[in-house]
Amino acid sequence: MSADAMLIQEVATRDGFQIEPVYVETADKISLIDALAATGFSRIEVSSFVSPKAVPALRDAAEVFAGITRRPGTVYVALVPNPKGAERALAAKVDEVNLVASVSETHNRANMGMTPDASIEGFGRIMETVKGSGVSTNATVATAFGCPFEGDQPVDKVIGQVERYLALGIEGVTLADTTGMANPRQVERLVARALTLVPAERLTLHFHNTRGLGLANVLAAYGTGARRFDAALGGLGGCPFAPGATGNICTEDLASMAHEMGIPTGLDLEGLIALSRDLPRLVGHDVPGQVAKAGRPCDLHPVPKAA
Amino acid sequence: MSADAMLIQEVATRDGFQIEPVYVETADKISLIDALAATGFSRIEVSSFVSPKAVPALRDAAEVFAGITRRPGTVYVALVPNPKGAERALAAKVDEVNLVASVSETHNRANMGMTPDASIEGFGRIMETVKGSGVSTNATVATAFGCPFEGDQPVDKVIGQVERYLALGIEGVTLADTTGMANPRQVERLVARALTLVPAERLTLHFHNTRGLGLANVLAAYGTGARRFDAALGGLGGCPFAPGATGNICTEDLASMAHEMGIPTGLDLEGLIALSRDLPRLVGHDVPGQVAKAGRPCDLHPVPKAA
Repeated sequence: MSADAMLIQEVATRDGFQIEPVYVETADKISLIDALAATGFSRIEVSSFVSPKAVPALRDAAEVFAGITRRPGTVYVALVPNPKGAERALAAKVDEVNLVASVSETHNRANMGMTPDASIEGFGRIMETVKGSGVSTNATVATAFGCPFEGDQPVDKVIGQVERYLALGIEGVTLADTTGMANPRQVERLVARALTLVPAERLTLHFHNTRGLGLANVLAAYGTGARRFDAALGGLGGCPFAPGATGNICTEDLASMAHEMGIPTGLDLEGLIALSRDLPRLVGHDVPGQVAKAGRPCDLHPVPKAA
Repeated sequence: MSADAMLIQEVATRDGFQIEPVYVETADKISLIDALAATGFSRIEVSSFVSPKAVPALRDAAEVFAGITRRPGTVYVALVPNPKGAERALAAKVDEVNLVASVSETHNRANMGMTPDASIEGFGRIMETVKGSGVSTNATVATAFGCPFEGDQPVDKVIGQVERYLALGIEGVTLADTTGMANPRQVERLVARALTLVPAERLTLHFHNTRGLGLANVLAAYGTGARRFDAALGGLGGCPFAPGATGNICTEDLASMAHEMGIPTGLDLEGLIALSRDLPRLVGHDVPGQVAKAGRPCDLHPVPKAA
């Protein structure tokens, strides 16, 4: 891909489905993941090997990995919160594990039941497990742009956590705006710092649209040199603290923005729009994505008859 | 205001209410406009002196202007499509008239029933009417970033229309993305051209969020030097061609973005959020704004009890 290309990693079936009150059937998950891969994704975060009690919506992670058709050129990722999850992920033949710890101690305790230090210590054990398996590794700094309990997180603390990930031999790093608190100037500052440690092809930005700034934050990050972004079909996902708030940035809205700007993504936008329009059937409600409702800017309308 | 300040003009009671199927009572409109002024707006587009048959939702424009309390420091604007509307606006003691013509001939014929040339010829007559009245003037180039019937509009054509406005002595110019077709790179190009003709303090950008790019486009325009933006409380408004699509960019989401970035707006964000949360009572449905649902980033949440 060219240096200006944008790499979009699809996360709807993980970060989207995990908070849906309706259980999406395993067969529907598999069909959707295969259809997403066919639109050209080089990376799909398929599911999460968390405790089935904690996240029952993703209790079928192993079955989903067993059922999908591996498309050459697509990396199938699983989120893994702890060493036990990593063992399950390896058994399911994932291509990559995505480890996650919050920079905010309060958030990590609430989300993972342990301190960030304990989480990262677990990462060391996971790296031992993964070694030699051919499975690649990524780790996420959650609440990197703010914690819903603690507020702002110091940039040095976020960068320190990135350095600890790299010291463990973890290949890719994701900075996550877990509850949509980031703003474009903050994004520029943190991305500029992160790019001094992690090359653009291994740095991912994970934005939520909780306060409407998702694509503005992408624009700021892209302008600073970032090239990899997580997004969810239809803008699935949400925020446990804000009923009615939107979740992840929307894949097809992001792809439409990129294409209109002349930035290649390798994705079939019409195919994505068709898949997004089918989401209400799977989740039982309208989804926030806009391009699936409005059409692409090039989808013109017939001229109204003269009054 | 400082050179980096952002001037937000509130347009909910005009561009928002005009497409609501429910008629918002005159007294409710007046209360809302007075409450909006109290949050600090230096400019409010109050209503439109269009044909009451064409836009029945705004048939009470004169009564609304008669009923509001004029806050010192706030400019109360009315949209005016033709000389007859201008006469009604002057009689209602508006502070400013905002004239509008599309750059797309097809759109202007569909929207105004005449060619853009005929509309702009009417602007000349309006300027004669307004002369000496003390009422200031602004004119909007509608579909400046694309027409839903014709598609892209050449930049030279848009700029040519801006020049015709200025030649008529019109003081302010608005570039309107009438149906949300703009993208950030296009915005940078057109704003840079427009700023060679119109100083930032007299150039307004009017973006819609139809395809989710509203605030990304603001960011691009601001970065290019634009400082004045239209926005609607709650993200009211819509697109006649896209049922379910969002409308204007959301005032409180934009103000929150600006404040988080350290850009002053002079607005009371908490006051705006309170007014936005009351909108469903007036219009009978949920509104798209996100910050009113999620709260400001600084509105922290209590730490959950240990599991």
